[in-house]
Amino acid sequence: MSFRNSSAPSQHPLIGVDVGGTTLKFGLVSPDCQILHQFAIPTEAERGADAVLARIAEGINRLIDEQNGLIAAVGLGVPGVINQRGEISYPPNFPGWGVVPVAERLRPLLKQPLPIAVENDANVAAFAEAQAPGATDRDFLFITLGTGVGGCIISNGSIWRGATGGAGEIGHLSVVMNGHLCNCGARGCVEAYLGQRYMTALAAAQLPRFPESLLHAMLAEGNALEPKLINAAAEAGDRFAADFLEEMGEILGAALASALNLLDLHLVIVGGGIAQAERHLLEPARRSLRARLIQSISHDIQLRPARFQNNAGIIGAAMLATTAGAA
Amino acid sequence: MSFRNSSAPSQHPLIGVDVGGTTLKFGLVSPDCQILHQFAIPTEAERGADAVLARIAEGINRLIDEQNGLIAAVGLGVPGVINQRGEISYPPNFPGWGVVPVAERLRPLLKQPLPIAVENDANVAAFAEAQAPGATDRDFLFITLGTGVGGCIISNGSIWRGATGGAGEIGHLSVVMNGHLCNCGARGCVEAYLGQRYMTALAAAQLPRFPESLLHAMLAEGNALEPKLINAAAEAGDRFAADFLEEMGEILGAALASALNLLDLHLVIVGGGIAQAERHLLEPARRSLRARLIQSISHDIQLRPARFQNNAGIIGAAMLATTAGAA
Repeated sequence: MSFRNSSAPSQHPLIGVDVGGTTLKFGLVSPDCQILHQFAIPTEAERGADAVLARIAEGINRLIDEQNGLIAAVGLGVPGVINQRGEISYPPNFPGWGVVPVAERLRPLLKQPLPIAVENDANVAAFAEAQAPGATDRDFLFITLGTGVGGCIISNGSIWRGATGGAGEIGHLSVVMNGHLCNCGARGCVEAYLGQRYMTALAAAQLPRFPESLLHAMLAEGNALEPKLINAAAEAGDRFAADFLEEMGEILGAALASALNLLDLHLVIVGGGIAQAERHLLEPARRSLRARLIQSISHDIQLRPARFQNNAGIIGAAMLATTAGAA
Repeated sequence: MSFRNSSAPSQHPLIGVDVGGTTLKFGLVSPDCQILHQFAIPTEAERGADAVLARIAEGINRLIDEQNGLIAAVGLGVPGVINQRGEISYPPNFPGWGVVPVAERLRPLLKQPLPIAVENDANVAAFAEAQAPGATDRDFLFITLGTGVGGCIISNGSIWRGATGGAGEIGHLSVVMNGHLCNCGARGCVEAYLGQRYMTALAAAQLPRFPESLLHAMLAEGNALEPKLINAAAEAGDRFAADFLEEMGEILGAALASALNLLDLHLVIVGGGIAQAERHLLEPARRSLRARLIQSISHDIQLRPARFQNNAGIIGAAMLATTAGAA
């Protein structure tokens, strides 16, 4: 979803903003996709929409000042569905937002008129994978494993939005009939296993039955039980952690197989905090995926971690500002 | 997938051919979607590709003769994935076909040059729902319940094909982790429950435990156990049949919820032999679907039987010949 309010020379750098529930990340990005400068400030989401929008504007204005106004466009990745009118509706982790037309509300707060593009954060990260210089994949499913499990369908290089802009919610593809309860109200969703809090809770529930697990000592040292720690334990040879992640990978692969069968896509790109768990999560997911695909598409399937990790939000938002016609 | 080889006045009628494993159905269809005349001949699929193509040409030539050559275009719905080159690959139930470029092979067998469009049969039936005069739905998921469970994604009035033309295979969306084995090699696929042979086998396995079921008498009268008979028993008040179809509906609804969550579609159109089982299959499916959708799309979901039933293949194929630019 892009909203033009002026045109600007495209050789100027872009501003990409990654709007998270905890942190706002700002980046000055060159048209060829290099981050020239970046910083982050706390979101302070508990203070409500007006305060958060003011803080977003503050960060953008700081970059406008630093560049003496020579900015081509601004892109924002936000954690929620953006509808056809460019509004975000009740974003999770942003209390009191309701329905907010982000670009419209942000525009009067900026020091100078700039084209503003606003997009769902998973779509933004997927767009970075599709559109960054050197990217060659035109059709893929993007899945991001974080607090939630988000996703995006990239078709012919563009975000495929569905009827009202919300397509790509692979986190709420259900793979276990009447399985674990998900926060969406359904049961057996991928997110109810692979979402960070769910995965942590599942591991915590099983861990007492495995007193020999290295995780006990790691937790005693003050580490928090989270997917990355489970992967670190698996990498250190812990059997429980490896088996647990393998089970998660099998569920992930089953969901991806259903999605690829339905969409006729042949590539999955995995983003998010645990996308680097190649050996213990991605490889089991790949095996599970390949075993469950229909024959016509099973011969050339790939699953790989995202190219951009922590900076996917900034880079994708900046890319989106450019190619959405905003710049 | 359409293949032009000439242009023709669009006021002439179209020929739609529904290529089934058992029967070839031919229809002469007016540009405003009325069937003017239709007939069927046996496919004789066991005689191989050359023989079947000759029989298809025979039926088309008969309509060409009857119309003194005043035909605008020909469309065919075929049971298999059509790739970007217009080839069908190893269609199930068509022994010895391998990879066949249908239009290319058919063209020299016709009495006169005509534009020929070839498309997967589920896509053809979905296209009829999207493009027939009076159709208003531009975005929906089509699912057809027959021997197999096929489907099609209609986006903005057109067939959404995915990367290589095979999108829409909702039959191989898996809803039961490690559930029943499907003929695709995976487990827990919708087709492994709702496909006609699977549904029949499941019912046959459970039926002996329900000696009071009306189905025993119906089978003794010489009826074959099949989904339509189970629905007839349920309509006649049989508890076993009603509970069985409700369970099937719940599985169907779970698969549809996963698909709609992923695709952001708000309408499901159900075709195929058992799509008329409104009370005992579609209503339970609707309840299951609504209970499993994410909140952002759950408010305006519809599930309804297809408008065209037995003639969907003929009408859709004729429509496709027109709007694919063939006519």
